[in-house]
Amino acid sequence: MESAIATLQQHFASIQEYLAPLLAKLPPPVQTAVTSTTTRNVVAFVLVWNLVKSFNSIVSGFMLNNWTSDKWNWSREVVFITGGCSGIGQYIVDKLASRGIKVIVADIQEPQTKLPSNVHFYKCDVTSTDSVKAVGAKVRKEHGDPTVLINNAGIGHEGPILDKPEGTIRKVFEVNTLAHWWTVKEFLPAMVKRNHGHIITIASAASFLGLGEMTDYSCSKASALSFHEGLTQEIRLWYKAKKVRTSVIHPIWVKTPLIKPIMESGVKFRQPILEVAEVGDAIVKHVLKGNSGQLIIPKSISNAGLVRALPNWIQEIIRNIASLDLKKIRDAQDAQLAKDQAAAAAARS
Amino acid sequence: MESAIATLQQHFASIQEYLAPLLAKLPPPVQTAVTSTTTRNVVAFVLVWNLVKSFNSIVSGFMLNNWTSDKWNWSREVVFITGGCSGIGQYIVDKLASRGIKVIVADIQEPQTKLPSNVHFYKCDVTSTDSVKAVGAKVRKEHGDPTVLINNAGIGHEGPILDKPEGTIRKVFEVNTLAHWWTVKEFLPAMVKRNHGHIITIASAASFLGLGEMTDYSCSKASALSFHEGLTQEIRLWYKAKKVRTSVIHPIWVKTPLIKPIMESGVKFRQPILEVAEVGDAIVKHVLKGNSGQLIIPKSISNAGLVRALPNWIQEIIRNIASLDLKKIRDAQDAQLAKDQAAAAAARS
Repeated sequence: MESAIATLQQHFASIQEYLAPLLAKLPPPVQTAVTSTTTRNVVAFVLVWNLVKSFNSIVSGFMLNNWTSDKWNWSREVVFITGGCSGIGQYIVDKLASRGIKVIVADIQEPQTKLPSNVHFYKCDVTSTDSVKAVGAKVRKEHGDPTVLINNAGIGHEGPILDKPEGTIRKVFEVNTLAHWWTVKEFLPAMVKRNHGHIITIASAASFLGLGEMTDYSCSKASALSFHEGLTQEIRLWYKAKKVRTSVIHPIWVKTPLIKPIMESGVKFRQPILEVAEVGDAIVKHVLKGNSGQLIIPKSISNAGLVRALPNWIQEIIRNIASLDLKKIRDAQDAQLAKDQAAAAAARS
Repeated sequence: MESAIATLQQHFASIQEYLAPLLAKLPPPVQTAVTSTTTRNVVAFVLVWNLVKSFNSIVSGFMLNNWTSDKWNWSREVVFITGGCSGIGQYIVDKLASRGIKVIVADIQEPQTKLPSNVHFYKCDVTSTDSVKAVGAKVRKEHGDPTVLINNAGIGHEGPILDKPEGTIRKVFEVNTLAHWWTVKEFLPAMVKRNHGHIITIASAASFLGLGEMTDYSCSKASALSFHEGLTQEIRLWYKAKKVRTSVIHPIWVKTPLIKPIMESGVKFRQPILEVAEVGDAIVKHVLKGNSGQLIIPKSISNAGLVRALPNWIQEIIRNIASLDLKKIRDAQDAQLAKDQAAAAAARS
């Protein structure tokens, strides 16, 4: 240990020696600033911080993958994705298919474009266990067991708790979180048996904070994260299938049909809104790597998991800011509705 | 500011003067240790840490209560609690009733004991909006609008994702999280109108981590926390009812009928298991104060919200440890079942 430190000190000394003539060329006030103790401390802090971050990232990679590596033979893998006919799902399907990977799309909507020969569509209502079981049996018979399951189907509707109809609230839970149970029940057993597979949960940045106007959505996505965590534990400790991977993805707002009301409201939205490609590419890259992991997109909000650890007053400020954007949209919509109604009344009289 | 610092320094000097003769009485090595820079730094750190904590706690109190205070006239308040016929709920009902407070108990079970005259039982299936609406109408007619709503009813069943029946999973979501929507829809409007009320969400420490064997429960409780957050935003920003309070309670394991399998397994459980009274008393105290807040019980796990902010590998270690307790119980139950079956087979042959 001591000799290692001595070697390091030698390296630093030679770096300093090398930098000294360069430093001498700078104007004297800059020289003083660069060589000050404060600068040295800041540089040391940034270096240590990044070292700790890299260390965590590397150890997390090993830990989440149970210290095992696995091979993915993409000419033989079968990807099963729910909600693959629109938004991020459709993008993922296109990208995986263009690499020649066999993709099974389960969606309640019909495909919007002609599918390539390696993409197979099955009409499926993921909220019905009968439908999921029937599609599961058919897929197994026609294509074999899926080795990658992407629980991507998701819905969302704006509106406060008091105004939202019972059916809408139930449906959000059914699609965004309960459906994950039904597909996992269908496809996990074969993955465990072969000790090979990957289950990807598409959650949301909303997993980390409950917001007004989308409380049901936030709840269903908090639940999706928790599902991923419990599933990971069971695969590791109950079934000891160390090579079955689990991942969870948390994108912030994405330009999909889901956020049409936000896009159309004309309100200045202060939160980042990502392109489908940005999120889709990150997910595809992650799927192809074949390792377990947690992706929070974009990187600028990678500390979103910290929100619920903060003092309550800071949490409230963060949620206030995020909720107020949605409240403004509600107000804009209400104002537009009132104007339309007034115009209609004027036209009638 | 400078004069304040000078005054503080004077105070410290006089404290030091006062302590000097006491210090002189200690053995010399202890004197050296006490006056060392390290000791001074540790004491300073602990002081600052506690100052920051107190500051956060005070500001959070103001912030969560929208910088307003409110009066509670307990001879006129009406408390509505779901699941008040067993476990923590029953305890809360008893304690509030003994203070002469009017309590409405909504439960699918009948009361286990004779109720005092200020406690009124309504048979209610909180998973049915028809049932909640019918009870709501009756309660309003017979007792007026509830001013305190305690969403306490909760269920849980052990078992991994693959083994748990669909009906069980759905029921856990229905009772532990969806029911909160139905009762809030029923009673929040009157609270907003009067700008007076308190909605208390009984969540769980499981809100903060998804565990094997109880994934559905963890999901439903993560959702309950998120519901509380969204509800808080809507009351504050949508309805501007600054005096309607919201609170969320996260108890760890409690000796209720829910955890009977854990108690009976004989497995050494490494996590704290609280008495019903410990949790119940904390909740009653909180209700009587009438302020918004987040309670994590016991205090030793008050940083549970930090788990999802930690590097993934540390998160996994924490969830591994917590899940392994549950896995051991599963193994003990399976072993017992096998033994029972073998004994039964032997008796038959």
